[in-house]
Amino acid sequence: MLYCCVRNVCKLKPSPCRVTLALQHTRRLCSAPPGEAVDQVRTLLELCVDRHYVSPGQPNTELLQRGMSCCYGPLGMELRRNLLQQWWLSVTGSTQQVFGINTLSSSKGTATDGLRIVESEQLKHILEQKELSNQQLLQKIQTLIQRSPSLRTGFLQGALEQFVPSLELVNRKLPFGLAETGLCFQPSDGSGCPAEVTQASLVWFCPPRTSSQWLDHWNRQRLKWWRKFALSPSDFSSSDVPEEELEEAASRGVRILYRFPWGQEPVETLWSRGSTELLHTHNGVRAKLQCRDGRKSVPHVISVTGNMDRGVMAFLSNSLQQLKKEDSKKKMLQRKVLKLHPVLAPVKVALDIGRGATVELRQVCDGLLQEFIEAKISTWPGYLETMPTSMEQLNTKYDEMGVLFTVVINENTLESGLLLVRSRDTTIKETKHISEIKSFLSTYISAADNL
Amino acid sequence: MLYCCVRNVCKLKPSPCRVTLALQHTRRLCSAPPGEAVDQVRTLLELCVDRHYVSPGQPNTELLQRGMSCCYGPLGMELRRNLLQQWWLSVTGSTQQVFGINTLSSSKGTATDGLRIVESEQLKHILEQKELSNQQLLQKIQTLIQRSPSLRTGFLQGALEQFVPSLELVNRKLPFGLAETGLCFQPSDGSGCPAEVTQASLVWFCPPRTSSQWLDHWNRQRLKWWRKFALSPSDFSSSDVPEEELEEAASRGVRILYRFPWGQEPVETLWSRGSTELLHTHNGVRAKLQCRDGRKSVPHVISVTGNMDRGVMAFLSNSLQQLKKEDSKKKMLQRKVLKLHPVLAPVKVALDIGRGATVELRQVCDGLLQEFIEAKISTWPGYLETMPTSMEQLNTKYDEMGVLFTVVINENTLESGLLLVRSRDTTIKETKHISEIKSFLSTYISAADNL
Repeated sequence: MLYCCVRNVCKLKPSPCRVTLALQHTRRLCSAPPGEAVDQVRTLLELCVDRHYVSPGQPNTELLQRGMSCCYGPLGMELRRNLLQQWWLSVTGSTQQVFGINTLSSSKGTATDGLRIVESEQLKHILEQKELSNQQLLQKIQTLIQRSPSLRTGFLQGALEQFVPSLELVNRKLPFGLAETGLCFQPSDGSGCPAEVTQASLVWFCPPRTSSQWLDHWNRQRLKWWRKFALSPSDFSSSDVPEEELEEAASRGVRILYRFPWGQEPVETLWSRGSTELLHTHNGVRAKLQCRDGRKSVPHVISVTGNMDRGVMAFLSNSLQQLKKEDSKKKMLQRKVLKLHPVLAPVKVALDIGRGATVELRQVCDGLLQEFIEAKISTWPGYLETMPTSMEQLNTKYDEMGVLFTVVINENTLESGLLLVRSRDTTIKETKHISEIKSFLSTYISAADNL
Repeated sequence: MLYCCVRNVCKLKPSPCRVTLALQHTRRLCSAPPGEAVDQVRTLLELCVDRHYVSPGQPNTELLQRGMSCCYGPLGMELRRNLLQQWWLSVTGSTQQVFGINTLSSSKGTATDGLRIVESEQLKHILEQKELSNQQLLQKIQTLIQRSPSLRTGFLQGALEQFVPSLELVNRKLPFGLAETGLCFQPSDGSGCPAEVTQASLVWFCPPRTSSQWLDHWNRQRLKWWRKFALSPSDFSSSDVPEEELEEAASRGVRILYRFPWGQEPVETLWSRGSTELLHTHNGVRAKLQCRDGRKSVPHVISVTGNMDRGVMAFLSNSLQQLKKEDSKKKMLQRKVLKLHPVLAPVKVALDIGRGATVELRQVCDGLLQEFIEAKISTWPGYLETMPTSMEQLNTKYDEMGVLFTVVINENTLESGLLLVRSRDTTIKETKHISEIKSFLSTYISAADNL
């Protein structure tokens, strides 16, 4: 990684800072060198809060760091949206047959553990039955909870259930996949609130004899995808799951890992699961499940599950560059830039005004804003800001927000139609004509997408 | 509506059809004339199941009909995705300042009712404490459930909590809004499973003196939006909520209604809520909430909440046309077409092959498919289908799926580069050159978007 931040090991002083407590978690997780990692993470989390990627509050930043869904601010929300959109396009928009589905997040199963949804009204109703003995009340409560629907922990079960209705779509021909994204729930680790995770899931059905090749195929595809958006692609790697960590149903597993400052964590996991769970879901009725791959076999299942919240944290961490630079008074400063991939960056362009007749300049900006909105270019209307700010302060702010370009309209624009465009990545300011700016931005973003 | 289906009132015969039971629900809801409505709904639900909009099963189609999330098939999933995407663009992509946020779906509140998430492990743990009396066990269970997090029923509370961190973004200037979409949960109506609803929410903060105008503004905007995608826009209407139905906190309310075959139901609801809930959320600390609108007032809140699952059902219902037509043997047939708006239609184009050398034709199709995927045009690769089907059968199928265009490649294409494009809406077949087909489709879809 290109971090070149000030690296005084363990110079952390106790402070009421909102991320200090979250950092204790980092320290626990840290591999080496601890001080440096803590510094990096502190800087990143502070920036995420200040620049509206996540909502303030230590429990919140800690959730994100642990790879769980949290209260995202507008920029974090948009980043996750972009990430999910890209995941979806790459999985369902490939030439492989993948269909999107939607299943319910709660179901009445036979599971005895996990998270149950209990209607407190119903419980109240039971407890009000004064004529019952305590023993009877206990019995009734146990039954209530046993019969309550459980919250899903993943998308696998839903996809296995949808396998049969999907067979018609593909005329019983393998391979094909079912994709779904959304919230899943995991029991809490003591905090009392269940962990919410935004998962992206592909469940792939293939002939038994090629399941191993398919696992390799999807592993390559997914790793390539994660690396595509990274500033430093080698921070993403993939590794086989050791035999002792295999899930019960799985014969092989691969994890795609991201190297966080505190150590590696999985962002996506692939399992080769055989056909046991599929058979079990459909009560062992093989005839319903058989496909036309020459041998009438029951397909094998490969599950690919990404944690998109941890993905957000990975790309935030990966894209933060800290560079030393001189300010106008020759003072050494640290420049922090969130170099998010153009496709992921939540804000593509900021619109600001320089010197000149404010009313007219604002009108020009209004027009450009409208034009950008129509072209679906996400724009930050900086010119609506009423607090006076220097251009230097603005650039610092936009760099930390990860805004790709800053467009400045000034009195010159009113005369000649020329405006200034500053690039986040090169810091170079170019002069462009107002009529070409929209197509310049669109071309830049779609070129980055197709690289 | 343009329904011209066979209308034998009450000719329903008892059958094991998968939608019969769902129809009983329709009958209960039906306004007049009942038989006709039942026929319409039966036809619609059967088509939705047959064409992979919803998964088979009576409980499932009943959920959709009641405006709740259900197991969607690939086409329904994509339709809802398109609808949510359009809602999001229209609300956050307006020139009004609206920011997207993400809040958690469970929270530890002080609410005494609603849905609680209980970890069954914890309950088991309590019940295993043999040394406790039944009275003590009951006490412990009550405490466990009281302390369990509740599932959200809507996005309002989350947005009210995020008001303060968002103030910095807008420099304390009103008005602005916070938008969020996703799953919300409501207690069951006896079935035991909580209702899941895909909601789209805008919470708008404005100066008290203009709150009434803003309610009118958003009402107009939202009604215009629903009508934009409708085949028969007048089926959407808006109406003031009568005083006796107002929510406790609200001083005024408006509902946007859709006229289903069984009667009107709200697809979006707007409330003018004053500032009471906002103050309550922030413990009455007015100083934290005051904005710069000349009078340092605490903003008023307007909530706009759409039910996107009911929206899916509304557009499916609105777009189904049943037309009489003659087949090639002069027999009268019913043609069913799902005339979904080009922007909403889950599949924009189907790719099929006619007569000619199969291997070469498939190669051409592979190339076109790749081209369409890159242009993000959602494509149905009909040419991969291995069952022989007549062109007439294909057209019937694609019309019922709501596919905008069918492109047929045949031996002529190999020689001249010319292919046939059939339009769902006009049924006219045009000859086009293979090099212009992608841009033709893109232009058609974006033109429909900008109408």
